[in-house]
Parts: sequence; structure tokens; C-alpha cells
Amino acid sequence: MIRIGLAQLNLSVGDIKGNTKKIIDSVEKARKRNIDIIVFPELSLVGYPPQDLLLKKHFIKKNIEALKQIEHATKGIVAIVGFVHAASDGKGIYNASALIQNGKIRDIYCKINLPNYGVFDEKRYFTPGRTISIYSFKGYKFSVNICEDIWRKDYVKLLTNKGFDFIINISASPFHLDKLSLRKDILTYAALQAHCPIFYCNLVGGQDDLVFDGTSMVISFQGKVISVAKRFKEDLFVSKFPLGNIHPKNMKEFLPQAVFDALCLGLRDYVRKNGFNKVILGISGGIDSSVVASLAMLALGKENVYALVMPSRYTSKATLSDAKKVCSNLGIRYYIIPIDDIFKYYLNSLQTLFKGYAQDKTEENIQARIRGNILMAFSNKLGYLVLNTGNKSELSCGYCTLYGDMVGGFGVLSDIPKTLVYKVARYINKRMGKKVIPDSVLKRLPSAELRPHQRDTDTLPAYELLDPILKLYIEDDVSLEEMVKRGINKKLAKKIIKMVDKNEYKRRQAPPGIKITPRAFGKDRRMPITNKFSQ
Amino acid sequence: MIRIGLAQLNLSVGDIKGNTKKIIDSVEKARKRNIDIIVFPELSLVGYPPQDLLLKKHFIKKNIEALKQIEHATKGIVAIVGFVHAASDGKGIYNASALIQNGKIRDIYCKINLPNYGVFDEKRYFTPGRTISIYSFKGYKFSVNICEDIWRKDYVKLLTNKGFDFIINISASPFHLDKLSLRKDILTYAALQAHCPIFYCNLVGGQDDLVFDGTSMVISFQGKVISVAKRFKEDLFVSKFPLGNIHPKNMKEFLPQAVFDALCLGLRDYVRKNGFNKVILGISGGIDSSVVASLAMLALGKENVYALVMPSRYTSKATLSDAKKVCSNLGIRYYIIPIDDIFKYYLNSLQTLFKGYAQDKTEENIQARIRGNILMAFSNKLGYLVLNTGNKSELSCGYCTLYGDMVGGFGVLSDIPKTLVYKVARYINKRMGKKVIPDSVLKRLPSAELRPHQRDTDTLPAYELLDPILKLYIEDDVSLEEMVKRGINKKLAKKIIKMVDKNEYKRRQAPPGIKITPRAFGKDRRMPITNKFSQ
Repeated sequence: MIRIGLAQLNLSVGDIKGNTKKIIDSVEKARKRNIDIIVFPELSLVGYPPQDLLLKKHFIKKNIEALKQIEHATKGIVAIVGFVHAASDGKGIYNASALIQNGKIRDIYCKINLPNYGVFDEKRYFTPGRTISIYSFKGYKFSVNICEDIWRKDYVKLLTNKGFDFIINISASPFHLDKLSLRKDILTYAALQAHCPIFYCNLVGGQDDLVFDGTSMVISFQGKVISVAKRFKEDLFVSKFPLGNIHPKNMKEFLPQAVFDALCLGLRDYVRKNGFNKVILGISGGIDSSVVASLAMLALGKENVYALVMPSRYTSKATLSDAKKVCSNLGIRYYIIPIDDIFKYYLNSLQTLFKGYAQDKTEENIQARIRGNILMAFSNKLGYLVLNTGNKSELSCGYCTLYGDMVGGFGVLSDIPKTLVYKVARYINKRMGKKVIPDSVLKRLPSAELRPHQRDTDTLPAYELLDPILKLYIEDDVSLEEMVKRGINKKLAKKIIKMVDKNEYKRRQAPPGIKITPRAFGKDRRMPITNKFSQ
Repeated sequence: MIRIGLAQLNLSVGDIKGNTKKIIDSVEKARKRNIDIIVFPELSLVGYPPQDLLLKKHFIKKNIEALKQIEHATKGIVAIVGFVHAASDGKGIYNASALIQNGKIRDIYCKINLPNYGVFDEKRYFTPGRTISIYSFKGYKFSVNICEDIWRKDYVKLLTNKGFDFIINISASPFHLDKLSLRKDILTYAALQAHCPIFYCNLVGGQDDLVFDGTSMVISFQGKVISVAKRFKEDLFVSKFPLGNIHPKNMKEFLPQAVFDALCLGLRDYVRKNGFNKVILGISGGIDSSVVASLAMLALGKENVYALVMPSRYTSKATLSDAKKVCSNLGIRYYIIPIDDIFKYYLNSLQTLFKGYAQDKTEENIQARIRGNILMAFSNKLGYLVLNTGNKSELSCGYCTLYGDMVGGFGVLSDIPKTLVYKVARYINKRMGKKVIPDSVLKRLPSAELRPHQRDTDTLPAYELLDPILKLYIEDDVSLEEMVKRGINKKLAKKIIKMVDKNEYKRRQAPPGIKITPRAFGKDRRMPITNKFSQ
């Protein structure tokens, strides 16, 4: 019998020193817990994804020096560590795992399948490996592979009929909706084909727009999930091999909770890993800023969240009162700065220049940008990070003001469709056991309040209609023709597609946000701005 | 003897209809000029780079339908057209060229070497081809290949000793400094190895951050450039084969002129291809905005450029006067909006909140953001595109205000180091035959004028010192250690590296700009924001 530990750590990109320390600490802990094989996630030494840091030779060198430190710390134990391997001829680097035993690197395996789609750019950096790994330990035969390797059927075929007793997969697999069941299916398939258990070790933590959800797991040779590590948290998860009695786990997850957890972890890690403690946001009394304020409070603590309420002539009493109520409910500090005086002076200054032109969205945008300026001033003066509160539906349609409500260091909801924002809001209330987000916020018709009696539906269709169309267009690449076939109104679909297309320039300048859907904006969806393709 | 035409066209991404029309028009022209083989650039049907449009099945389908239209238009002529080929089993698409003869596609060649570095992401989309093409026409044997193919020695080896009479390469090769000589070296090597001439057809035009410079050329089997098409302009360039008498061309180019041409083309195409006619910029009387105003005037015409002069309490009489002078010299309209009243109202509104805090960069940024708001208001009201005037040196160091002087739809100088901005300015004066940019602008010490007596050198080293360090760090990935070895002051280098690293978040929200150096910001340099790597 051997004991396998999956060290599901929250590592940081570029922090070779810190990551090395965390890895060595885990090795010590593993030794105390009589673990035989301690497993770390993909590229654990350098964090994931290191992006263009990989182009720096001295970065690769430091990662190799760090691996040597870990080598020294592995007396009496086997450690499997993800790192960047450099070819001895200086040509090419590899996404690799080292098998370290008793203070010595016994073997290096190089990832064969390099993902180069979605958010992944691994072919930009790495040379693919050529052969699978075959190891033996205490009479057992096993293989180590890395993330994407096991997602491809041709790779799984290589593991079939090899007589492996078990397989270890080290991963840096980011969260998105339904990813968990996808991952389970992939691992089930591989376990059944290789006819042996799989020990799957995944990274945890936030890195810019990605959240790694951990959820390391063990799959039996029958393809059943038999044990699961923590979700969205660090864990040192120990299993025995042979597995013994098997009790399949139910992996079904509660959607708003997973989204909530991903948002909290992504937000907390972005703030802290970038050296901030405190955040500031503009709170309007609308649903988006209420949800972001709640998430920030829950992720960072109420003492670390500050809200600015910035009413204008168009702010209703009800929303102003709701804004204050949400802050009180959450116990966060807030301050009210009316923007109307400043707004008047802009209008004065522009009066001559704009003579003869009617009021239009210009005046709306000026107000949004005054608020952006005030938030940034607060951030500059006090060192708080500005949280952006825009949602994916408005970012998709460009129903937002560049440099106005689009300011911020981090876009908490930027991959959350508006209809999902409501679900998250209700989940927050449920979780808190009280209505921190009042019913009035949940029920009021959405408005930007930038002109009299404005409603989102003046410009956009109802979100219940809009969000499914946006999903088809942005996530599923469905054509207009196909949408119409599926029963969507042609005029409406055309209007929305046009809105999405022509606002690519805004999204190019949007803050990074947390990927939640199968296709987020940013590096996950790389569209030209100059684009004359019409459906 | 056969006549080969290189159709160096300015095509548009996504504009399958428009590109098809341009291609068919060129075929007609070619027929009239007795051309036997008419050659179009890489992916000419869809424009380059189409990015994630390639993930849409209906996009691929429309490109194939368009190819059929071209097929019908090729009576009595051979056309070589770049397009997206789809595998018949529906699995995979190819970066391909069709050889169309007499109204029929005779063969399809699929690009073998897919670039996936720098600005290129071709492995994200395309499956690589497997075999080189071998064609014959009027008793001659030739091969067609696509851009990156010929940049790799192992590919060139495949062309060796095959008895080709000539080779055709279709490209979408973007401009950067020294690219021309690099391209010449690559083509020379290939011609010598294959022992035959190369007809090289390159795309021309601007596409977001890329400028394609055309400069199609013919290389003799001795590796000499014997004829060159227009640079930065469309051309239908005709050559004979066999080549006849050979007169090698001198390819040396004048640096500021190439940069100037690239900027004008990149700017003009971004503006026009995105449906704008007119641009607006803030002009300060400093060198950057003077250069952008001049470039805009030269690229778009003086009637299409509008400048806002936005003085504050810190604006000196001299710069204000220079701002007006530059506008008069260029003949562009301008308007003066002092920002001090608005500024005062911000200070009033923030007074209580900021009580006890000293003045700092916050107050500087507020001013920059007021200017940003005014520029955007003008843009929203009148439909002018805002040009951003920041240079690469300040963008590198974060010496710029996010949502302030960083606003704009397009960053004309964002890949131009400050020292190069001065060279471009002098070139503009020389080209115009008069000092449109006055000596006072060229000689004044740079200042943001956001506080009394401010100088760029309060924060940054002299640009003559700064720019070479930035180049080593950003373009060449040189480590701190190596910089010190090369004689750079350690403290200074460390300070600058830190500035570059910690301002990644600003660049993430910067407008797109024109790639000029071997490594621009944006998709050319993909750095994590959350990054704890220290040199």
C-alpha cells in the first residue's frame, strides 16, 4: 500500500521563490503524514500561465535553480513537480514534470499535448514532448502526464494496455461553467481506457482573468469519482493505493454557489497578489454594484471595502436610498459625492463648442466619466484598487461608457450575464441569511439613470431575451441564419450582433475580469476591431 | 516567356465581399496587361489576420463561396489566391492558396509552417499542410508557398534540387524596424538554395496594430533583389520570367521615412476602415501631440483633423502659444477649452474626503482625466475618432494617466520611443519643407505640465538613457544582471524594470497602436499583470 498526496496549492505566477517555499513546506508536511508520493500541479514552480515570462532565459534559469532546491528537500519521499524544462542544446523549452526521489531527479516528463485554443497559448512557448512516462514504485507501475495530455483520445490510447497500476495527472485547469462535469467525463474515459485509477491534482487560485478551482480528485478504474479535494481552496489531499472500498461521490454542483466561489477567489487573489488590501467601488443602488460590494465584503472583509455614492440630477431617491442601504447592510463605509456641480461646469465649458447640437448620449457619458475620475482620484490618493462593476451583457452590447463606468483595475462581473447577476444576488442573500441586497434592488427595472426616466430596455431588449442571443453569438459562434432557424427574431438578432461587433473597441480597453463562461472576453476571444464581416 | 503579376492589394479583414471584388478587378486588369499568372497575398479573401472570425463556420463557408466567384472570373489566366480551406471531413481548416486556371481550381496548397509567436497565433486556428506544391505552366516548373513557409530552413531544404524554374511566395508580413532587410535575407537564402528566382507578393495596408508594407519583390536565382514593388501602397507589379538582364536594386531604406510611412498608412486605414472620416486630438504644445497632429493632417487631410487645446493653471504661455502655432502651421482647426474651472469643482467636491492628505499625483491625474473626458465628449457629440498621442517610453514606464492622456481609439505613437518621436518630427519638417513643428517644441525640455515647474526628468531619466534600457528589457528580454554587465547603472536599470513591470495594468487598458518595433505592447508581448517575478 502506498499513500499519495495531492498538494492542491495556490501558487503565484512569477513567484519562483515563494512557490518553491510552498512546495518545500508541503513536502515536509507530506513526510510527517507518511505520504509516499507527493504531487504538485502543472508548472507549480513558476505559476500558471507564466505567459511571456517564458521568453526570458533568466526566468527559465531561476526555475531550474529552484528545482534543485526542491531536489535537496525530498529525502525519503517521491515528489512530482511541474516546472519548465530547457533542452540541453538550448533549443526549446518544455512544460514538464520532474520525478524527484530521495534528493535526486530521477526523470523528466515533457507534456505532449499543448493546448493552443481559448485562453491557452502553449504552442507559443513550448516544444511538445514525444514519449509517455513509465515509472515504478514499490512494485507498482504508473505514469505521469500533464493536463491537456489526458484530454485527447490519441494520448489516452497510448496509456491503454500498458499495465499501469495508476496514473497521475498534474493540471492547471481553469474554472468555467460546466467545466467540472467536462473534467469528470474526460477523467472517467481515461480511467476506463487505461483500466486503472487516476490521481488528478489541479491548481487552485486566481491569476488575472483565470480562476483555478482545485477540486483535485481520484477516479477508480471503473471510472467513478471516489474522492474529491476542496473546491476553490488549498488542500493537501491524501489517498491510498490500492483504493480499497469504493464509494462513488456525487459531483453535481449548485450553479450560483460555484460562480460565487469563483468570483470571491478570483477577486481576493487579484487584489492581494497585486499588493492591495483595500478596494473602492462606485455604488449606485443598482443590482451590479450591490452584488460587487457584497462579493468584495465577503472576499476581503468589510473593513477593506469602501463605496462612493455619486448621485446626479437623474438619480432617483429610491436608488440613492438603496445604495446607502446596501452599504449599511454590508457594514462597509461609504461617502456621498454629488456630481452635479462638476457636471454643470463641463456643460458650461462645452457650451460654445456644442452650440446647435441636441442633447444626446454625450451628456450621459460625461456624467459616467466624472464618476470614473472621482473613483480614480480616490484610488490614487488612498491606494485602494477600483473594482469595476459592469456585467457581460452590457459589455457585449457596449451599453457602458468607456473611461466612465468602465474604469477599474478589475472587472468582477465582466463575464457574468445580467440574468446570472440576479441569481448570484439571490444566492448572496440566501448565504448571508438576510436580505443584504434589498428586494427593491432585485425588483427595480434596470436603469443607468443618466437621463430622465431612462430604462435599459430603451436601448436593449429585456435581459431574458438578450442573454440567450449573446450566448449563441459570443460563446457558440452561431450565425444569424442559424439563430433565425432556431426561432429568434431576425431583426432583433441582427441588431444585437451589430452592437456586439461595433463595440469591440470598448472591450479592448476594458479591465481584466474573471472568466466564468466557456468563452469570456479578452484572451479567450480574440476578435479584430477593424472587421467588416457582416453576418 | 511568361508574365507574372503581383497584386499587392490593400484588403480588409472580414470583408469577403469587398476583397473578392478587388481580386476580380485585379484579374480583369491583369488580363488586359497580358499577365499569365496573377498572384494575391496570403489569406487575401478574408484579410489578415482574421483572428477568431476563423472560429465561425459560416465565415469559412462564405470565404469558400467567394472563391467560387473568383473561379468563374479567371478565363484565360492563372490566379493564385490566398483563402481558408476547410478539410472535407469537417475537421480542421488550412491557411491555403488556390491555383485557379481557366475558371477551375486546379490545386490547393496548405501552408506547412504556421507562425505562433510574436503577433501571430496561426496554430490557434489552422492545421498545418504536409506537402509542398509542384506546378507546371508553359513548360516551366514552379512551386507556391505561403509566408512563414519560406522563413524556415527545413522548408527551404524541401525546395532544393527539385528543378523548380521559379517559386511564388504569398505573404502577409507586417512591418517593423529592420524587417525589410530580414525579409531580404530570408528570400536571398531561399533563392540560393532552390537555385531559382522567387516572386514574393506581400499584403499592404493597416489592420488594427499591424501595418503591412507591401514591398513585393523579385529575387534572382543568385539571391539578388532585382525589382521591388511600391512600399506602403497598392501595386500591380509585373515581371517577366525568365528574368532577362539583372540589375540588383539597393534596398537600403531611410529609417524615419519608413516609420513615417508606416504611421500614416496605419493611421489612415484604422480611421477609414472603421468608418470614420475625422479625428480629434488634444494638442498641448509638446512634441508628441505636435507629431500626431502633423501625421493626422498628412494622412487624412487638414479638413479632417480637429485639435483641442486644454490649458490649466500649470500650462506655460510658451507651450500654449506653440500649440496654437502648430495648428496654424498645419492649417487644422482648433478650439481652446481651459480646464481650470472644472478642476476647481473636482477639488471642492473631494475636499472633505481628502482632508489631511497632501497634494500628490492625484491632482495631476484629475486634470489629465478632465482632458480625457472633454475629448471623448467631443468625439461622442461630433463622431470624430480620438487619437491618442502617448509614446512608447512613457507607456513603458507608466508615465501617463489611465483614462486621462491614455484615452483614445488609436495610439498613433504607442510603439515609438521618445527619442524616435523627435526623429520623426524632424523628418516631418524636412518633408514639409518648413518648420511646421517649431524649434521651440523640438528644444523644450519635456513636461506634462500637471504641477508647477514639472519636468519628465523629475520622474524618468533622460530619454537618451531610458530608451536603450527599455529596448533591452522589453524587446530583447535582457536580464538585470546582463544589463549591468553591459555597463548600465544597476540602480537605474532596476528602477526602470520595476516601473515597466508594475504598469502592465495600464497597458492592458491602452488603446491599440501601430507596431513599429520588433516587439510592441499588446498581442506582441503577453505579460501577466499579476506577476511576482523579480529580476
